This record gives sequence, C-alpha cells and structure tokens, in this order.
Amino acid sequence: MSSVTCQISISLDGFVAGPNQSFENPIGEGGMRLHQWVFGTESWRRQQGLDGGERNADSDVIDDHVAGIGAYIMGRKMFGGGDGPWDETWTGWWGEDPPFHTPVFVLTHHSREPLQMQGGTIFNFVTDGIESALEQARSAAGDKVVSIAGGASAVRQYLAAGLLDELYLHIVPVILGAGERLLEDVGDPNMQPVSVTASPTVTHVKYRILR
Amino acid sequence: MSSVTCQISISLDGFVAGPNQSFENPIGEGGMRLHQWVFGTESWRRQQGLDGGERNADSDVIDDHVAGIGAYIMGRKMFGGGDGPWDETWTGWWGEDPPFHTPVFVLTHHSREPLQMQGGTIFNFVTDGIESALEQARSAAGDKVVSIAGGASAVRQYLAAGLLDELYLHIVPVILGAGERLLEDVGDPNMQPVSVTASPTVTHVKYRILR
Repeated sequence: MSSVTCQISISLDGFVAGPNQSFENPIGEGGMRLHQWVFGTESWRRQQGLDGGERNADSDVIDDHVAGIGAYIMGRKMFGGGDGPWDETWTGWWGEDPPFHTPVFVLTHHSREPLQMQGGTIFNFVTDGIESALEQARSAAGDKVVSIAGGASAVRQYLAAGLLDELYLHIVPVILGAGERLLEDVGDPNMQPVSVTASPTVTHVKYRILR
Repeated sequence: MSSVTCQISISLDGFVAGPNQSFENPIGEGGMRLHQWVFGTESWRRQQGLDGGERNADSDVIDDHVAGIGAYIMGRKMFGGGDGPWDETWTGWWGEDPPFHTPVFVLTHHSREPLQMQGGTIFNFVTDGIESALEQARSAAGDKVVSIAGGASAVRQYLAAGLLDELYLHIVPVILGAGERLLEDVGDPNMQPVSVTASPTVTHVKYRILR
C-alpha cells in the first residue's frame, strides 16, 4: 500500500503561512519568505516548465521527494477559488500546466467534475472525507507515494488521524510571529528523524511517523 | 568581546517547557521529554560528577558547546526559589556542586550576596537589567563565550534586544501541544544555519544571528 508523505516549509516559530491570507496573498503576509529557497533551484524551475536554476542540496531534496510521488491530496483552500459552490472558471492557481503531473485529489464539500489539465495533472474533487480521498489517491498512485500537498489544515487532519507515514519539514530560519501553525491539534505522534540535509539556508528533516 | 550564545532543547511545535510548571515539575508537564537525549550521554553525566554514559553525536554536541563557555546568565525562574524576596536557604536546583563550573549571573528584582558553590560555580544576582548582567558576564567570561542558560523568558529578552549572537537549537521530535514557547515576541532576527548535526533522536541546528 502506498505510503503517505508530506513535505512542507515551516518557519522556525512553527508557521507554514503568514497572517491575513487572502486571494492576493494566498500564503499570508511574509509567507513567501518560507519558499524563497525553492525558487532558485533547477528542480522547481523545471516543474514550472522553466529552464536554468541551481543544482544544490535544496534541489536534490526536491527531486528526491517529487520522484516518488504518484498522487497528491490537497485542501480546498490550497486549490483556491473561494468558499461555497464552485466557480467553474477557477482551475487552480497554477495555470494550464500545473506542477503536479499526477492525479490530485481536492478535499471539498462541493462536488465537481474532474479537471484534466496539461502535463498529466488531473484535479479530482472528493466530497466524502479524508479517508476516501486517501483511498482514491492510493489507488491512483499505484506503487508510488501519496503526498499531502497542503494546506496546513489538510496536513493536520491526516496527521491527527494517524494516516501520515512521513513528514518532511523544510525548516526555514525566519520568524513570522503570526500565521497558520502546522503542528497544532495533531495529537502526540511518535516521530523519528530519518534523514537530515543541511543547505546554507534551510534544514531539511524527514521524520518517520511510527504506529 | 565575548559572543553570546544559547543552547536549548525545543519541541517540534516550538515549546521549551510543558504546561503547568511548578516547584515539583519545573519544566512543566511533558517537559522532561525534551531532555531525554541528554541524560544518557557521558558529557552530561560528567557534568553531574557521574561516571559512564555514551559517547555519540549528542555527547559531542554538548562537549563542543560547553567547552567554550566562560559565564552563564539565567532568569530567576530557572534559578528557582519562588518569587519575591529571597529565601536565603535556596541555593538553586543543582545541589552543592552545580554543573556550571563558571560564574552564573541570575536576573532578579531582589538583591542578594553572591553564592560561592563547589566546583567553581558562583551565583551572582543582578538587579539592574539584562544589559548589566551581560556586561558583568562578559567581564567574567574573558575570551570565552557567555551562554544564556534559560529559561525561555531570559532567552527571549536577549534575542529581542539583539544581544544574542548564536542560538543552538536541539530540535526534539515530540509535540507537547502546550507550554512555554521560545520564539514568541522576539522580533524578526536575521538567522543563518551554520552547523547541523543529526543524531538518531535529535537534530541540532546552530544559527548565527546577523546584525
């Protein structure tokens, strides 16, 4: 059965998004500071269909992680388009060729037909809960891994339910002071660091979650 | 001039002590889980005057850090003995031969004569603020480092005042869920990871704080 992983950038004070998230600023004030380490890498640029970028410890971390992923699960807020019934013109934040290139299962209370995008991304909308989404994602992932893409609430739900096998934190040395915390109301999981990669700006720690 | 460092164990959700700290439970409920990695080491046992213990990545981290320290600063709560004027029978939590072996400057609102302990520890009580305590500690440390021993409030004050040069976090993969946070109300310091040491249980990350 596919294991379930999550990789996410987190501030040193525990936030994965800044305060006052909005349509204009989906990861909140200061939230982009958590992701600066990504944008210069060859790995990220390639995912976006761009040339160039650096090969370094950070790009290796991204590549190693992404290579194993066969399906993603994300929360409605991460997919975007506001609350309530769908505005069907909204197809996500990522344009015609999203950087997932696999099936993506979006947790929502409002049903919607699947959206086939360019580059292999298919957004599927799941209205019957996180376990159903996981079952569908596992089926789609085959022998690859299911990744909980975010946001924080989706990750917290899978972690609290004991359904996450691995949490890969990119610990970014900024202090946001406010925003959305990742590790709140998730119980007391038994976690073990299994790999640590230091780059000049970020510390990547992969935790196995023991049952 | 002596640089100013702090090493402290922190939970993955950002707490350096559990909830409901008390005389019986000075680092709060669950707080001892942050320090389990220390007790088996040869380094810690030696500091306490005990034989045996393990040599491993964790013990090296402790030794490297402690070797450079010429003086400590700690908050009144860490020294203990309750609030208000001193009960002069209270000489700290650590017995006759405390594990500091250097001058220690205790931040307090209540003056008290210095306490000369066995093994080189002298507790000095400073009533005129954190900058004065730092000046006295620097003078005592000579060409060695001043360490802010804790608790969280003392560390926060030095960090917020821009007086900390280095923060060495021992990131322990437990989720306490409540307690005392370290990195709250400390502003937005410019931090850079300068060394990362992985042990089987703890990730040790040393941050330089840039001015």
